[in-house]
Amino acid sequence: MNVVVAGGGLIGLAVAWRTAQRGLSVTVVDDAPGSGASYAAAGMLAPVTEASYGEEALLRLCLESLHRYPDFVGEVSRAAGMDVGLRTAGTLVVGFDDDDMRALDALHAFQRELGLDVARLTGREARRREPSLTPRVRGGLHVVGDHSVDPRVLHRALLAAAAAAGVRLVNVRIESLRTDDGRATGLRLDDGAEVGGDVVVLALGAASGSLPGAPPLPVRPVKGQILRLRGAGGLLDGTVRALVRGRQVYLVPYGEDRLVVGATVEERGFDPAVTAGGVHDLLHDAIDVVPGVSELELTETLTRWRPGSADNAPLLGPSSLPGLVLATGHYRNGVLLTPVTADAVAELLTTGSLPPVAQPFSLDRFRR
Amino acid sequence: MNVVVAGGGLIGLAVAWRTAQRGLSVTVVDDAPGSGASYAAAGMLAPVTEASYGEEALLRLCLESLHRYPDFVGEVSRAAGMDVGLRTAGTLVVGFDDDDMRALDALHAFQRELGLDVARLTGREARRREPSLTPRVRGGLHVVGDHSVDPRVLHRALLAAAAAAGVRLVNVRIESLRTDDGRATGLRLDDGAEVGGDVVVLALGAASGSLPGAPPLPVRPVKGQILRLRGAGGLLDGTVRALVRGRQVYLVPYGEDRLVVGATVEERGFDPAVTAGGVHDLLHDAIDVVPGVSELELTETLTRWRPGSADNAPLLGPSSLPGLVLATGHYRNGVLLTPVTADAVAELLTTGSLPPVAQPFSLDRFRR
Repeated sequence: MNVVVAGGGLIGLAVAWRTAQRGLSVTVVDDAPGSGASYAAAGMLAPVTEASYGEEALLRLCLESLHRYPDFVGEVSRAAGMDVGLRTAGTLVVGFDDDDMRALDALHAFQRELGLDVARLTGREARRREPSLTPRVRGGLHVVGDHSVDPRVLHRALLAAAAAAGVRLVNVRIESLRTDDGRATGLRLDDGAEVGGDVVVLALGAASGSLPGAPPLPVRPVKGQILRLRGAGGLLDGTVRALVRGRQVYLVPYGEDRLVVGATVEERGFDPAVTAGGVHDLLHDAIDVVPGVSELELTETLTRWRPGSADNAPLLGPSSLPGLVLATGHYRNGVLLTPVTADAVAELLTTGSLPPVAQPFSLDRFRR
Repeated sequence: MNVVVAGGGLIGLAVAWRTAQRGLSVTVVDDAPGSGASYAAAGMLAPVTEASYGEEALLRLCLESLHRYPDFVGEVSRAAGMDVGLRTAGTLVVGFDDDDMRALDALHAFQRELGLDVARLTGREARRREPSLTPRVRGGLHVVGDHSVDPRVLHRALLAAAAAAGVRLVNVRIESLRTDDGRATGLRLDDGAEVGGDVVVLALGAASGSLPGAPPLPVRPVKGQILRLRGAGGLLDGTVRALVRGRQVYLVPYGEDRLVVGATVEERGFDPAVTAGGVHDLLHDAIDVVPGVSELELTETLTRWRPGSADNAPLLGPSSLPGLVLATGHYRNGVLLTPVTADAVAELLTTGSLPPVAQPFSLDRFRR
């Protein structure tokens, strides 16, 4: 069977790689692979957030994907001949005022219900773990099992792993979905060429809702602004997340001396602007939590768009159009959900059905 | 007489143009003309600041240069065949708390002593003039005669005007000053070539103190970080300056819809970093003064270096080395002082003496 994957971000490449490993012939089409949300993502692998209450199925999917991450990264690294690296220092969630501490306590209770390894820390203990935290920190949670990965390095490795597994990459802009007799049969490209296949996997991230020829999908762009900084060697051991006057900010160290600070969440369609207000708020909150951030070099200010769905959960599996399979709508969890998404879609393509963990995320759920 | 000008920023080009107009043969050497402080400057032409007390000679020079600006811009525009444009809306200086209002009153008294046309405004009057100001503004001064210019447009025009006047531009990196028998005789270039001349004008801005072969000069780099934003059409009519908790910030509109926000003042040598703290402080203060800045697109974050001298005033005229003439050390006033500097140095080169207004700025003053 010939599989065509529309989109060469983390999700598209991982699906292609896993599918090729199962013996199918796979072509990925993307004019700029990895330049979308994969390029901006911080790579925080921290499934349990304040938003997790009431999203138990999504939480299970996220925890399952986190569980698969070490093996996934190891396997990709070997296949690509390069070390992707997984930072395993855990996440420190910190709070400053009474409201924050109540939120931390509630989060802690929820995490213990889930059986997660979480330590409740005093302010002093939090600062012992991350000495660069402001002295104003009142307390924290250390989520031992959370990891982080550099999405750009992972993307490079997936490109190499996919190529090694025989995946063909076509670096041309997609013009539209090709359909014949009410069935997806490939992609039409901007250069006039076509790439035909028995199945098309839609992995276009925030653009998944606007592929000409495809049925309408409940996927919209959710703008995020994010910063990258240099000179952070030794500043933080692991990811720090904080609530600053109701705004969430996260600081994710990566590489030798880099730091990601993110991210705004804005409903502005595909607005590409990096705004004064967005950059200000991120810098302000990051400096508030870790004053030493002030001295770092600001090397990148980026805007990208998350693929948001109606319920913040991904769209996995069959679409309303025969031959078109969905691997999109991952919203803020694209990096985290890459391993489980790739495995689930590869299984669907080879066996005809999604594994149980992915079944709650079919498009059907919106029809009920 | 052959004149070689080291440095093709605003100062170097204006000196070259004015000197060529007087019939001398002029060559400017710069591998990247206009990429230094001229590229970052906001172009505020506002001579009277809180720092002006006790710097009467510098203030006279600045006022004289401001006085010459309209004719200078008109003449450059005609010579270049392009409209440089001079924004003549004046400067609005605003204050927020009691300390600010006392500083405004003192500044106002000083400006009236100087005979400047300055209106003392209430907060309401200030907001009537610039409705996008925060309602928290307590009062202001409107300095009618202040102007602003886009330094990048002015630089482009000076390049054309200088070329039209016969100035030769050599786009090669300068290696060192050439001297023969204790006299400057030209420049050695990175490509091995030499440019010989009877006089060398040193107009290298912050790098003026580190030209190999030249005598030591009291010029050091003073780092400035500055921001440019887009989408500001209609936001401000003219320049707004404010004190925000002891930090000065200025907002200078230019072009159709652009805004410059500046600038940090840092003693860090030639440190090129755009820092989280620098960008944060500028955005914070600008948004504090004009909340609508928050919505603008942040298009550039820049670091450049001002040529600071021991007394913040320029170095004009002869150096300790025969044949080497100084046109540097302009610190924060390079754009403003361009016309008077060009006229003064051209006069020195053709008549042998500086005009009276420039005489206090010879290197001699440090020997007394």
